[in-house]
Amino acid sequence: MAFNSFGNLLRLTTFGESHGVAIGGIIDGFPAGVKVDFDAIQKELDRRKPGQSAIVTQRKEPDTVQFLSGIFEGVTTGAAIGFQIQNTNQKSKDYNHNTNVYRPSHADYTYDKKYGTRDYRGGGRTSARETANWVVAGALAKQLIAHININAFTSSVGDIFIDKPYQELDFSKTDDNIVRCPDAVSAEKMIAKIKEIKKQGDTIGGTITCVAQDVPVGLGEPIFHKLHAELGKAMLSINAVKGFEFGSGFCGAKMQGSEHNDVFTEGGKTETNLSGGIQGGISNGMDIYFRVAFKPVATIMQNQQTIDADGNITEIHGKGRHDPCVVPRAIPIVEALTALVLADFYLLNKTRRA
Amino acid sequence: MAFNSFGNLLRLTTFGESHGVAIGGIIDGFPAGVKVDFDAIQKELDRRKPGQSAIVTQRKEPDTVQFLSGIFEGVTTGAAIGFQIQNTNQKSKDYNHNTNVYRPSHADYTYDKKYGTRDYRGGGRTSARETANWVVAGALAKQLIAHININAFTSSVGDIFIDKPYQELDFSKTDDNIVRCPDAVSAEKMIAKIKEIKKQGDTIGGTITCVAQDVPVGLGEPIFHKLHAELGKAMLSINAVKGFEFGSGFCGAKMQGSEHNDVFTEGGKTETNLSGGIQGGISNGMDIYFRVAFKPVATIMQNQQTIDADGNITEIHGKGRHDPCVVPRAIPIVEALTALVLADFYLLNKTRRA
Amino acid sequence: MAFNSFGNLLRLTTFGESHGVAIGGIIDGFPAGVKVDFDAIQKELDRRKPGQSAIVTQRKEPDTVQFLSGIFEGVTTGAAIGFQIQNTNQKSKDYNHNTNVYRPSHADYTYDKKYGTRDYRGGGRTSARETANWVVAGALAKQLIAHININAFTSSVGDIFIDKPYQELDFSKTDDNIVRCPDAVSAEKMIAKIKEIKKQGDTIGGTITCVAQDVPVGLGEPIFHKLHAELGKAMLSINAVKGFEFGSGFCGAKMQGSEHNDVFTEGGKTETNLSGGIQGGISNGMDIYFRVAFKPVATIMQNQQTIDADGNITEIHGKGRHDPCVVPRAIPIVEALTALVLADFYLLNKTRRA
Amino acid sequence: MAFNSFGNLLRLTTFGESHGVAIGGIIDGFPAGVKVDFDAIQKELDRRKPGQSAIVTQRKEPDTVQFLSGIFEGVTTGAAIGFQIQNTNQKSKDYNHNTNVYRPSHADYTYDKKYGTRDYRGGGRTSARETANWVVAGALAKQLIAHININAFTSSVGDIFIDKPYQELDFSKTDDNIVRCPDAVSAEKMIAKIKEIKKQGDTIGGTITCVAQDVPVGLGEPIFHKLHAELGKAMLSINAVKGFEFGSGFCGAKMQGSEHNDVFTEGGKTETNLSGGIQGGISNGMDIYFRVAFKPVATIMQNQQTIDADGNITEIHGKGRHDPCVVPRAIPIVEALTALVLADFYLLNKTRRA
Repeated sequence: MAFNSFGNLLRLTTFGESHGVAIGGIIDGFPAGVKVDFDAIQKELDRRKPGQSAIVTQRKEPDTVQFLSGIFEGVTTGAAIGFQIQNTNQKSKDYNHNTNVYRPSHADYTYDKKYGTRDYRGGGRTSARETANWVVAGALAKQLIAHININAFTSSVGDIFIDKPYQELDFSKTDDNIVRCPDAVSAEKMIAKIKEIKKQGDTIGGTITCVAQDVPVGLGEPIFHKLHAELGKAMLSINAVKGFEFGSGFCGAKMQGSEHNDVFTEGGKTETNLSGGIQGGISNGMDIYFRVAFKPVATIMQNQQTIDADGNITEIHGKGRHDPCVVPRAIPIVEALTALVLADFYLLNKTRRA
Repeated sequence: MAFNSFGNLLRLTTFGESHGVAIGGIIDGFPAGVKVDFDAIQKELDRRKPGQSAIVTQRKEPDTVQFLSGIFEGVTTGAAIGFQIQNTNQKSKDYNHNTNVYRPSHADYTYDKKYGTRDYRGGGRTSARETANWVVAGALAKQLIAHININAFTSSVGDIFIDKPYQELDFSKTDDNIVRCPDAVSAEKMIAKIKEIKKQGDTIGGTITCVAQDVPVGLGEPIFHKLHAELGKAMLSINAVKGFEFGSGFCGAKMQGSEHNDVFTEGGKTETNLSGGIQGGISNGMDIYFRVAFKPVATIMQNQQTIDADGNITEIHGKGRHDPCVVPRAIPIVEALTALVLADFYLLNKTRRA
Repeated sequence: MAFNSFGNLLRLTTFGESHGVAIGGIIDGFPAGVKVDFDAIQKELDRRKPGQSAIVTQRKEPDTVQFLSGIFEGVTTGAAIGFQIQNTNQKSKDYNHNTNVYRPSHADYTYDKKYGTRDYRGGGRTSARETANWVVAGALAKQLIAHININAFTSSVGDIFIDKPYQELDFSKTDDNIVRCPDAVSAEKMIAKIKEIKKQGDTIGGTITCVAQDVPVGLGEPIFHKLHAELGKAMLSINAVKGFEFGSGFCGAKMQGSEHNDVFTEGGKTETNLSGGIQGGISNGMDIYFRVAFKPVATIMQNQQTIDADGNITEIHGKGRHDPCVVPRAIPIVEALTALVLADFYLLNKTRRA
Repeated sequence: MAFNSFGNLLRLTTFGESHGVAIGGIIDGFPAGVKVDFDAIQKELDRRKPGQSAIVTQRKEPDTVQFLSGIFEGVTTGAAIGFQIQNTNQKSKDYNHNTNVYRPSHADYTYDKKYGTRDYRGGGRTSARETANWVVAGALAKQLIAHININAFTSSVGDIFIDKPYQELDFSKTDDNIVRCPDAVSAEKMIAKIKEIKKQGDTIGGTITCVAQDVPVGLGEPIFHKLHAELGKAMLSINAVKGFEFGSGFCGAKMQGSEHNDVFTEGGKTETNLSGGIQGGISNGMDIYFRVAFKPVATIMQNQQTIDADGNITEIHGKGRHDPCVVPRAIPIVEALTALVLADFYLLNKTRRA
């Protein structure tokens, strides 16, 4: 079953609670012979880490990854790659008030009912801290498929949307601002919006768009391992995600076939790309692009009604240091999972012809 | 790997091309002791079968399922359940013109590039005929989790949407009309729209909403087997699907935490249900609901530019008998996959406490 | 989980009871582009089929395999390969006496206790008829790894052993006699022994040795997918198998390191091969050889004490047509599973270097 | 695929090289609500650790396990259980002479050929140090199935065998001597033998017998997850193992059905137990017993011919501190894997009836 595993040939298995000793994981099936760029991995972790800007949580965690195996003299050996990230800054006392109370729209209630017990400190296993593990594995996967370019960016915050197609954006500008939106005008509005929301002790949702370019034709497997289905599952595994669409997405459901079909041109390219780079579950060489919806963070600095473990109505008031909007720090997570999915299918595809 | 398998403890593996001898599958992990209602299974197949109404493909296939093993004297034995559906009405000559030509927005091109060969007759393995296998398995899964009610319905065709929340609909009316929309007024408009589109030799997209009720608390596994992530993957596996959202979905990405949070009331219920019945990947006992976007069918009865296998520009004109809108026949498919996912998690959940 | 599945990248899933409509399976992950030799597959099935000689069961079943998908114009397409074998000669009345009685050393009792029900006709799912499915898949796998030579043969029946190392045998002679022992002198004794045992209404055990030659270096994965561990699991999955040893096997446990070590010579070959062609779970290019122990068939034509489903002591007398010794018909089964394991690792090994 | 994972519902994934920072693993699927006895786990590790007696390697490693997640206030939470064991005593310089030379009957050659690279320090990933991870997971699994008694012991060293059936042994005496043989007379001879062999700079093989008692009826799954096949695969995964037999084993292959069949008596027990507690792959409630063959350790303190990485003939002389016989320290490993297999099937069996 492997509840805590992701992927097939390239497989990440993880552990760790927000306030335990450490989080970490094991990357299985990573091929031998890849020279590892450790700085690139740490850089991705830094993009995800708390405390990096005024519009994210002010918790400070260095999030330094330590590799424990599978890499020898800087090169992967084909053996399992173990790694861990120490938990250094757990203010457990911030969470003591949650011991016996179910935070609305968190997973406290469902964990308690399912398991009969839970590690309530900082959300325990449900904490998005887990995603740091994914970023490590994804950053490594990127190095396996270095010929593929993966770029995610903030495409909306609340009702502020970039009003351009992604083709008009310069992805090299994504990290130029703290909201990670490559359109400077929209970015400014988004940042202002998040600051205003934060001041209210409230939170806000947003969307991330991800584009994978230079993907070879043939990645993905038909029927139950379609490329977009695995990407969708990956994105829906991220905390706070409520929706996934690729190519024409939900808009495609309003269209007619005659306008939606991607007409072939020479060389197997298509004039339009409403298919989103995937046909029949298999990459066709065009850009793969998709959009991911994130709900507003559930922890707010306002009073909310809730219940305690005995079912009594009570009130809760958010404490601690939380993100007013999860989207800026989720960019590297979206990219990491995309890389893991593509790298897995890249390896699989080596076995599909005799 | 199991490219053609779906599920974990309850696992469906399938085979079959549109124009081969038969399609079929093996259902593994189905518990012993379930008295099988064969009529209920055939009834679901009939909801999916071609030729059932004026707004679907006019192909005629009886789609009769034959069980080959795993059921003895009408009761499941715990052994693998083999089944097949004969292919009886394959007008292969309808497809001969596609031998060497890539149909736009189909999977002809990607299969050819990936495998170096393909069964071009009626789409071969890429045909949505495969979904008949899923309906068989899903109908059986429904009988394992008979206490859960699963209702899917057409929520939009093109730009015609039901303008009511699902709570105001009577699911017992879904099959009262051929478009399978429980709102009679919308249904009429949708049917008219599809007929008009069909007359143009065109096709149109739509959305399906699915609601699972009376789901016990605790189904789903955190991290990489979240209930909504598996549902999303399942839905994205259906031919023509471009998007998936659950609970507040993409709308949730525009909201603030203070309006999005589902406040607890007594007994663990919540006042609102923007979470869509799932928190932290685990069912919380509220209704699970989600929405699936289907693009318009790619085969249209109009001339389209395309290329042949040698890369030369050519023209294609759809022949054969195709659906102008895939949504009405996809209702039982959405329900079937939902049942498979929930039944799988239902079994898994038996093992999560000592 | 996939209780009825075998293999990883190349994966066989099966169904079928001895006296159901048909048995069959789905071969998943078989690469595209292999031209299928159907005669070679049927020939392997014929080596396994009942009624082929005086020393095996006299049941007559043609065991003709029908492929249903995944092969187009004689070539594999990369899609799931479905197949079935009709059950044509089920004398169910032979088995009616077993309805309520547990045959000693069969699986009647354990199935009933585990599942609360069972298909008692001819052993149902527990019948070795299932192995016909394996022979089909294995014969196909052989065609994927045609550069590897796999030869199994009867190395003992009761206390009659071939008294030569396998290197002195001519595998092309294995099928020259009905017991499938390439040593003519031993073969004669074995055949006489089986005939004598049969006359007594009794059965007898034996061993099969299998040799895989021209295996490339590098097949197998360390830790939990060691090549010999997968081979062992495969062999122990065959009905009636009680033991597995490879290379020096149980004899190796009596030896000293200085005599057991395989000293390297030029080109990476070794002087001796007590390792059995596998070191650290990975093939080293030398012959892989192993031995499999089969217990005597449990169904005997003699009176035996037993109990019925209510726990009452009763007596049973074997009826029907059974093998006095399972070994001659198990030769193609051992080869088939060996081919499946090697083909799976052959595919996997394509992904282990960047 | 999960090359480094073992088990299905209860699943261990591991990492670590002999001379890396640490080894460790993740236990997935362990149910919530088990109060952990940490001392019992450390005690099993101590039974495996080097330096514990005069007849094992004199390396000193404390082998202290640290749990990192999945256990809260001493009770399992249902979340992934991460753990690690620091490597504290790696005399890497002992191994420098092996950098470029392939040790006979080790995995140096096969790793190099397969991966194109290897961590040569102390065998790297091929080191039996990995089995410490298994002992941790197995000791935890024992606590989940505390009603089952698992006892392994040394049944032979070289040609010295216990000459009694296991029923006449007192398992509480196994740890009374350093060779872990519950028969004091045999133990003395075995110890003398190992000391003599060690003096010669040589090594010697042996066998371990394992008995699982009070196993409930119904564990194991037919076809490809037979209980004995999984046990066999587990045992064959242990470094140096060359063979596995259960129940009558290889002796059964010499017997006749009339003597081999286990006749039922009242209550479903059997008079004899040549089946070894498993029929049709499923436990029948009788004792499960099996025997595992270990070859002599490959590292000897004598000169041996070998080749270097360039294929040149050279000579090697074992250095470092190695076991003269692996069997005494392998007892807890055999028990650990047995516990993991049984616990996995125990969980699975909760799902096999509706």
